[in-house]
Amino acid sequence: MNKNIQTFLACEAEYEAAEMVLFGVPFDGTTSFRPGTRFGPSAIRSESFGIETYSPYCDKDMTEHQIFDGGDLELPFGNTERVLEMIQEYAAQILSDGKRFVMLGGEHLITLGAVRAVVERYPDVHIIHLDAHTDLRTDYLGESLSHSTVIKQVWNLVGDGRIHQFGIRSGEKYEFEFAKKHTNLHKFDLGGFSETIAQLKDKPVYFTLDLDVLDPSVFCGTGTPEGGGITFKELMEAVLQLHQLNIVGCDINELSPHYDQSGSSTAIACKITREILLQITK
Amino acid sequence: MNKNIQTFLACEAEYEAAEMVLFGVPFDGTTSFRPGTRFGPSAIRSESFGIETYSPYCDKDMTEHQIFDGGDLELPFGNTERVLEMIQEYAAQILSDGKRFVMLGGEHLITLGAVRAVVERYPDVHIIHLDAHTDLRTDYLGESLSHSTVIKQVWNLVGDGRIHQFGIRSGEKYEFEFAKKHTNLHKFDLGGFSETIAQLKDKPVYFTLDLDVLDPSVFCGTGTPEGGGITFKELMEAVLQLHQLNIVGCDINELSPHYDQSGSSTAIACKITREILLQITK
Amino acid sequence: MNKNIQTFLACEAEYEAAEMVLFGVPFDGTTSFRPGTRFGPSAIRSESFGIETYSPYCDKDMTEHQIFDGGDLELPFGNTERVLEMIQEYAAQILSDGKRFVMLGGEHLITLGAVRAVVERYPDVHIIHLDAHTDLRTDYLGESLSHSTVIKQVWNLVGDGRIHQFGIRSGEKYEFEFAKKHTNLHKFDLGGFSETIAQLKDKPVYFTLDLDVLDPSVFCGTGTPEGGGITFKELMEAVLQLHQLNIVGCDINELSPHYDQSGSSTAIACKITREILLQITK
Amino acid sequence: MNKNIQTFLACEAEYEAAEMVLFGVPFDGTTSFRPGTRFGPSAIRSESFGIETYSPYCDKDMTEHQIFDGGDLELPFGNTERVLEMIQEYAAQILSDGKRFVMLGGEHLITLGAVRAVVERYPDVHIIHLDAHTDLRTDYLGESLSHSTVIKQVWNLVGDGRIHQFGIRSGEKYEFEFAKKHTNLHKFDLGGFSETIAQLKDKPVYFTLDLDVLDPSVFCGTGTPEGGGITFKELMEAVLQLHQLNIVGCDINELSPHYDQSGSSTAIACKITREILLQITK
Amino acid sequence: MNKNIQTFLACEAEYEAAEMVLFGVPFDGTTSFRPGTRFGPSAIRSESFGIETYSPYCDKDMTEHQIFDGGDLELPFGNTERVLEMIQEYAAQILSDGKRFVMLGGEHLITLGAVRAVVERYPDVHIIHLDAHTDLRTDYLGESLSHSTVIKQVWNLVGDGRIHQFGIRSGEKYEFEFAKKHTNLHKFDLGGFSETIAQLKDKPVYFTLDLDVLDPSVFCGTGTPEGGGITFKELMEAVLQLHQLNIVGCDINELSPHYDQSGSSTAIACKITREILLQITK
Amino acid sequence: MNKNIQTFLACEAEYEAAEMVLFGVPFDGTTSFRPGTRFGPSAIRSESFGIETYSPYCDKDMTEHQIFDGGDLELPFGNTERVLEMIQEYAAQILSDGKRFVMLGGEHLITLGAVRAVVERYPDVHIIHLDAHTDLRTDYLGESLSHSTVIKQVWNLVGDGRIHQFGIRSGEKYEFEFAKKHTNLHKFDLGGFSETIAQLKDKPVYFTLDLDVLDPSVFCGTGTPEGGGITFKELMEAVLQLHQLNIVGCDINELSPHYDQSGSSTAIACKITREILLQITK
Repeated sequence: MNKNIQTFLACEAEYEAAEMVLFGVPFDGTTSFRPGTRFGPSAIRSESFGIETYSPYCDKDMTEHQIFDGGDLELPFGNTERVLEMIQEYAAQILSDGKRFVMLGGEHLITLGAVRAVVERYPDVHIIHLDAHTDLRTDYLGESLSHSTVIKQVWNLVGDGRIHQFGIRSGEKYEFEFAKKHTNLHKFDLGGFSETIAQLKDKPVYFTLDLDVLDPSVFCGTGTPEGGGITFKELMEAVLQLHQLNIVGCDINELSPHYDQSGSSTAIACKITREILLQITK
Repeated sequence: MNKNIQTFLACEAEYEAAEMVLFGVPFDGTTSFRPGTRFGPSAIRSESFGIETYSPYCDKDMTEHQIFDGGDLELPFGNTERVLEMIQEYAAQILSDGKRFVMLGGEHLITLGAVRAVVERYPDVHIIHLDAHTDLRTDYLGESLSHSTVIKQVWNLVGDGRIHQFGIRSGEKYEFEFAKKHTNLHKFDLGGFSETIAQLKDKPVYFTLDLDVLDPSVFCGTGTPEGGGITFKELMEAVLQLHQLNIVGCDINELSPHYDQSGSSTAIACKITREILLQITK
Repeated sequence: MNKNIQTFLACEAEYEAAEMVLFGVPFDGTTSFRPGTRFGPSAIRSESFGIETYSPYCDKDMTEHQIFDGGDLELPFGNTERVLEMIQEYAAQILSDGKRFVMLGGEHLITLGAVRAVVERYPDVHIIHLDAHTDLRTDYLGESLSHSTVIKQVWNLVGDGRIHQFGIRSGEKYEFEFAKKHTNLHKFDLGGFSETIAQLKDKPVYFTLDLDVLDPSVFCGTGTPEGGGITFKELMEAVLQLHQLNIVGCDINELSPHYDQSGSSTAIACKITREILLQITK
Repeated sequence: MNKNIQTFLACEAEYEAAEMVLFGVPFDGTTSFRPGTRFGPSAIRSESFGIETYSPYCDKDMTEHQIFDGGDLELPFGNTERVLEMIQEYAAQILSDGKRFVMLGGEHLITLGAVRAVVERYPDVHIIHLDAHTDLRTDYLGESLSHSTVIKQVWNLVGDGRIHQFGIRSGEKYEFEFAKKHTNLHKFDLGGFSETIAQLKDKPVYFTLDLDVLDPSVFCGTGTPEGGGITFKELMEAVLQLHQLNIVGCDINELSPHYDQSGSSTAIACKITREILLQITK
Repeated sequence: MNKNIQTFLACEAEYEAAEMVLFGVPFDGTTSFRPGTRFGPSAIRSESFGIETYSPYCDKDMTEHQIFDGGDLELPFGNTERVLEMIQEYAAQILSDGKRFVMLGGEHLITLGAVRAVVERYPDVHIIHLDAHTDLRTDYLGESLSHSTVIKQVWNLVGDGRIHQFGIRSGEKYEFEFAKKHTNLHKFDLGGFSETIAQLKDKPVYFTLDLDVLDPSVFCGTGTPEGGGITFKELMEAVLQLHQLNIVGCDINELSPHYDQSGSSTAIACKITREILLQITK
Repeated sequence: MNKNIQTFLACEAEYEAAEMVLFGVPFDGTTSFRPGTRFGPSAIRSESFGIETYSPYCDKDMTEHQIFDGGDLELPFGNTERVLEMIQEYAAQILSDGKRFVMLGGEHLITLGAVRAVVERYPDVHIIHLDAHTDLRTDYLGESLSHSTVIKQVWNLVGDGRIHQFGIRSGEKYEFEFAKKHTNLHKFDLGGFSETIAQLKDKPVYFTLDLDVLDPSVFCGTGTPEGGGITFKELMEAVLQLHQLNIVGCDINELSPHYDQSGSSTAIACKITREILLQITK
C-alpha cells in the first residue's frame, strides 16, 4: 500500500542519487495577455504517462538515467520578487549539491531566478534562448520584472555577446535595435544554431526554451501564439545537438495547457522535455 | 528536497496509522455512451487543492483525521473481470487490516468488485444506492458485467430487501418492475432517506453514490446526464446524516471531468468527497 | 447488410403507419446573437441513443407508439421567406394526411411556417408559447421576419386572446405593453399554466416550446441564455399535462448544441422531446 | 464615419453628464487557483449586446439613465500594490466629482482599492458582502494582499460591525471564528438580507458582489466554483431591494468568462449588472 | 475620463486624416456548414492587443500610419441582398472620399458588396483571390447569393481573365471546368503568384483573402477547414509582395474564432491583417 | 416523405450493387490513455456533408462510384474478444460476397478482426501500416489484445516480411528491436513508400492507416498525439499511389473527434477517406 507519488516519466531517483533535478515553477504573475502557464508543470507531469520512456531519436531510455523530480515550488501569488528569490534559492541548492536542473515553467520570467543562481556559480555562462519574442523590453507598463523583459534582465547579469537568440519574430522596434548591439539575434528560425553549438562547446551554457518558438500549428497551448514559428522537426534537430554542450541549467517554459484542449501542446512539451533530459543527463 | 506526493485534500496519513483509506479506480471499460470516468480519480485528487480542508457544514477539518490515499489502481484495459478482481483484492486487504475505504470511480461497475469484498466480511450488509439510473439490467448487448447491470449483480450477492435506491429517474420498464419486487426503490428524489437511515442504524452499510443522481445543472461532467435530478443541497442534507450509520465501505463514481470544462463538476465531487470523509471517518 | 437509418429514439414507423411525424428544420438564418441552432435537430437525433425509450414519469414507452421521423428539411441558406414556405408545405402535407407533427428547430422563426399551415386547417387554433423572450418585436433592424418577431407574426395570423405566453422574462418595453393588450402573458414562470390547459381542452392547440424558457443552469446550450428561468421539474410538470389537450402541431426549438460542450442541454432536449411525444401521441 | 466605441449596454452618457460611472479592472494577479477574471470586464461589455435594455423586473430601461462607461484601467502586471493605488485614485476622482461608481472585476482584491477611496470620503460606510468565501484570511502563503484576505483588509479600514456577509460557505476554521467576533456573517444563504437593508437605510453603503455566491449550476465561469450557492432568483430578490439604500460605490467581481464556454455565466453577469445599475442609478 | 474606444492595433486616426479605412462586416447569413464568422471582426479587433505594432518582416510600425477603424456595420439578419447593399454603400463612400479600405469578414459573400463599389470606380479592376475553394458555383440549393457562389458573382461583374485564383483545392467538377475557361486558376498552392504580381503592377487590384487558404494546421478557426493548404510562411511571402501593387480595396474573411478555442487562428488573422495594412498603406 | 438515411459522402449504393463497402466500428475498449475513438465513424459520416464529392487531386467524383455504407456495428462494451469476432464475421461476409471494404475506427485493435477475415481468404496478404507507434508490444499491462499490440497480433497471423511500417516514431525499445528482425520498419516518415508500392503490385494488400501518423499540428483529434509526424501533403502523396495496388481490405482508425473541437481533424479524416475510396474503388 503505497502513497501516490507523481513524477515526470520515470524520473524516480532519490535526490541524493540523482545527477539531474527536474522541478516546476507554476508562476504566471506577470503574464500580460492570457494567463495559465501556472498549469504547465503539473500538466507535463501527469500527461507524461501517455508517452514512452524510450526515444527512437537518440536510442536512449529514461529508465537508464537517475533523475529526481522535486515537484513544484509553492509560490506566493502577487509577489513577483519573492517568487524569483525562491527559484534562485532552490536552483542554488541544486548547483551547490553538484547537480544540474531542468526547470518547468510557468512563464518566462522564472528564467531570471534560475540565471541569478547560475551566474553566481558560473560567471562565464552563456545563454541560448529560443523564443518567438525578443523579451528585451526595458519595462512593461512600468514594471521591469516581466515575461517581456526577462532577457533584458538576464543581459543585465551577463552582459554583451553572451546571449544567443533564435527563432525571434516579434518585439518592439527598439528591442530589435538593442539586440543588434548586445545579443546574437537570429531572426525567424534556427539558422546558425549549429555554429553557436560549435562555438560554445567548452563553456557553461544555460538553455532557455520558450515553447512559443514553435509555430502555433504545432504548439497553440501558450499565452501569446505567434504565427511563423519553427516546426517540431526543426526544434528536435536543435535539441539533438545539446549533448555536445556543457549545460549547467535549463528551463522549458510557457506551456499554457488549457488553451489547447486537444492536449497536443502538452504532449509536445512532454516529448521535448524527455528529449532534452536524455540529451543533457549523463 | 522532497518527491512530489499527490493526495486528496490533507489525506496524508501513513497506511498503518490510517483508519480510512481512499483509493481510485480509473475504469470506464463498459461505459456504453460517453467514456471518460477514467479521469475521475486523478481530477478529484488534483483539484482538491482548490477547496478548504474545513467544512462549515459539520464544523470539522480534514487535518484532524487520519486518512491514507493509496492513489489509483493500475488496470488492464479491455479485461473487465480482471479489473473487478483487482478491486476486490485491494478492498479485501483494507478490510482485513481493520480499516474502511472510500473508492473513487471510474464507472459504476467498480462497485461490484468492492461489494464482493464487503459481502464476504459483512454478509448482512445493506446497500444504499443514489443514482439517476436503476442499473438493474440483466445484460447490456449481451454483457452481464456493465455499468447498467451493476446493481442487479449486487442483488445477486445480497438478495431481496437489502438494496435501497434513491433519486432513480431512468431505466427500462422491466428494471422498474424488478425493483418493485426486489429492492426498495425511491423514484426521482431522496424521499424516505431519513427513514432508511433510521432503519439501518445497527447494520453494516455500503454506500454507493453515482454522482449523476445530481441534476445536470449541478453536475454535467458525467457520461449520461439525466435531467430532473436532485440539487446539491438535497444531496448535502443526505450526506450530513451518514455519520449515523456504520458505513464499512463507500464509493463515489461517474465523474467524467472532461465533459465539464468549467471544472465545476470536479469541484462538486471534491466537496462531496470531503464531506463524506468527514462524516464517516472517526 | 442494412443502410444506416438514423431516427430519434425508436421513431421507426413508416410514414403511412404513423400517427405522429417528427421532422427537423436546421435553420438559424435570422439569429442575431450566437448562431448554431442549425445543429439542433441532428444533435437531438444522434444523442437520443443515450436515453431510455421508457418514461418512469408517465409509464409509457416509445416502442409502443407509431412515430415517423422524416429527417431534416434541406434548406436554402440566406433566403428566409423560402425557408418558411418549405416548412409550411411540409407541415401542410402532414396535416392533410391526417397526421400531426413535432418539429425540431432550429431557431424560433420556424414556428411561423408551421403555424401558417396549421391556421389554414384549424382557423380557431390557440397557441401555447413557452419562452424566455416575448418575441413580439415589430421588426429587428428593419426585418419583420426574425426570431424576435415570430410571435408578433403569429399574432397577425390568429389575433387577440389566442396566444398564451409563459416564462417570459425579457423583451423591449413596447413588447410587454403589446402583450398586455393582445396576448395572455405570464411573466417569469408557469403560473396559470394548469388554468390555461383547462380552458383550452376542447380547442385545437399549437404548442411552441423555446427551450430557453429553462434556466441557463439547466439549459445553457442556446443562443441567448437568459437568467431566471424555470427548472426542469417545472417544465416537466407542464409537459405532463399536455395529454389533456388536442395538440395539432408542436415545435421544440432553440437548442444550440455546440454552446454546451457537456452535452447536457442536448440530453435535456432529448428527454423533453421524448416526454412530449409520449404525451401527445395516441 | 464614427470610431468604434464599445460600452456596456446603453451606457453612453458623457462623463460630465453622468451620475453613475462604470469601469473595469481586469486584474487577477493574486488568484491562487484558476486565473482569468482579467477577461471579465471586456466580456461583460461585449456580451451585453445580447440582452435587452429594458428590465421587466423593475420596469425601468437603461436608455433612461445617464451612465458613463470609462472602459478598463490599464494595469501593471505583477505589481499588486500599484494596482490598488490606481483603483483608489480612479475611484477617488469619481467620488470627488460627486458621482458614484460600479466597478467590474477582476478578482475580489480590487475591492480594497475602491473601499480605500470610499472610506476616505465616507468614514461611516457599511459594507455588504455577498460571496461563497469568507475572504478573511490574514495572509495567503505569506501575502497579506490577496483575493482571500480582502475582506480582512477591508475590516482593517472599517472595523467591527460594519461588514455584513451573506452566502458564505467556505473558509478556514479561524476565518469563521474571526467572523463571529467581528463581522455580521450569514452562512450559506441570504437569510437576514432584508433586515440588514432595513438597518442600513440611512447610512452610506458599499456593495461588493463576488459572483461565486451564486451556485455553480448558475455561474460556473469563476475561478473557484463552490457548490451549495444561492440561486439566480434569490440573488435577484436581493438586488431588487438595493434602491432602498444609499450605495456610494459598488463592485461586481470574479467572472472568469473562459471557464464557461457556454457564455451563460457572462450573460448572468450582464443581467445582474444591468439590474444593479437600474436599482442604484437615480 | 475617456470613453472606451476599441480599434484594431494602433488604428487610431480620425477618418478625415486617414488614407486607409478598416471596417468589419459580421455577416455569415449564407454559411452552409458551420456559422460563426460573424464573430470575426470583433475578435480580430480585441485580440490585436496581444501582438506588437512593429513588424520585423518589413521593418515598419503601425504607429507610423494613419488608419481609421470604423467598427462593424450593423446588419439586418436574414436579408442577404440588403447586407450587400450596405457594404456597397459604405465602400463607395470611402472610395469617393479618395481613401482605400480593408474589410474584415464575416463570410466570403461580403466580397461581392465591396467589389460592386470598386468596379463602379475602377472598371478595369483585377481580382486576386486566395482560397481553399473555387467559390464558382452557379447557385447553392437554389440561391445565387452564397459564400460558394461569390467569385462567380464577381465574374459576372468583371468578366474573363480578370480573376486570379490561388491555393484552390476544393470545388465541384463543373467549377474547375468553369475556371479553366474564365479565370486564372492556380491549384493547391501559390505557384505563379509572383508572376501575377508582376503582370498587374500598373492595374487597380482588389485583393480578397479567404483565410481558409491556409492549412487547417495553421488556421482551424474557420467554417470549412480543408486539408492540404498553404503554410503561414507561404502566405507571408505572398503578402510581403503586395506593396508592389495598386490595391484599391481588400478583404480578409472567414475567421470563425469560436472554432479555434486556442485563439491561435485569431492571432494569425491579426498578424496577417497587420502585415497587409503595413504593405498597402502608404 | 423519406426516412433519414445517413451515409458517408455519396455512398448511396445498395449492398448488392456495391463493389466497395464502408462500415464503422465504434470501439475503444483497450485505449489506455484517452478514449473517444468510438465517436470516430459517426463523426466522419455526419461531417462528410462539409466536403465536396469531387476530388481535384485525382479528378474523380464519389457520385460515379457504387459504394455501400453499412453504418456501424453495434458492439458489446467490455468484451474485447467478442468485438473482434463480430468484425471478423462482418468482413468475411463482405469478402465472400466478392466485395472489398473500408472499415472506419475506432481504435487500432479493430484491425485484428478484419485481418483475421482477410488472411483466411488471402493467406499471402501483405500489410501496409502507417502509424506513429510500432504497436508491436507483446502485452499491455498483461493484456495481449490491445491497441498497442495489434500489429504484433497481426504478425502472429502473417509472419515475417509481410508487414510494412511507415512513419513510426514511438514505441518501447524492444518493439523497435522486434521490428528490425520481423517487419519492414521505416522510421519517422514515408521514406521508401513508393518502392514498397512497386514491390507489392501483384500481391493482395491490406492497408491500415492509423491517422496519428499525421503530425498533431494536422491531426490533434486522436488519443495519443505524437509530435514529429508527417504532413497532410505527404500522406496525400502516398494515398494517391494506392490505385496501383490490389487492396482487398482497408481501415482508417484512431480519430477521436472530441479532442479536436475545431472539427478540423474530422474534416481531414473525411477527406482522406474520400481519397482512399476514390483510389481503391474501381
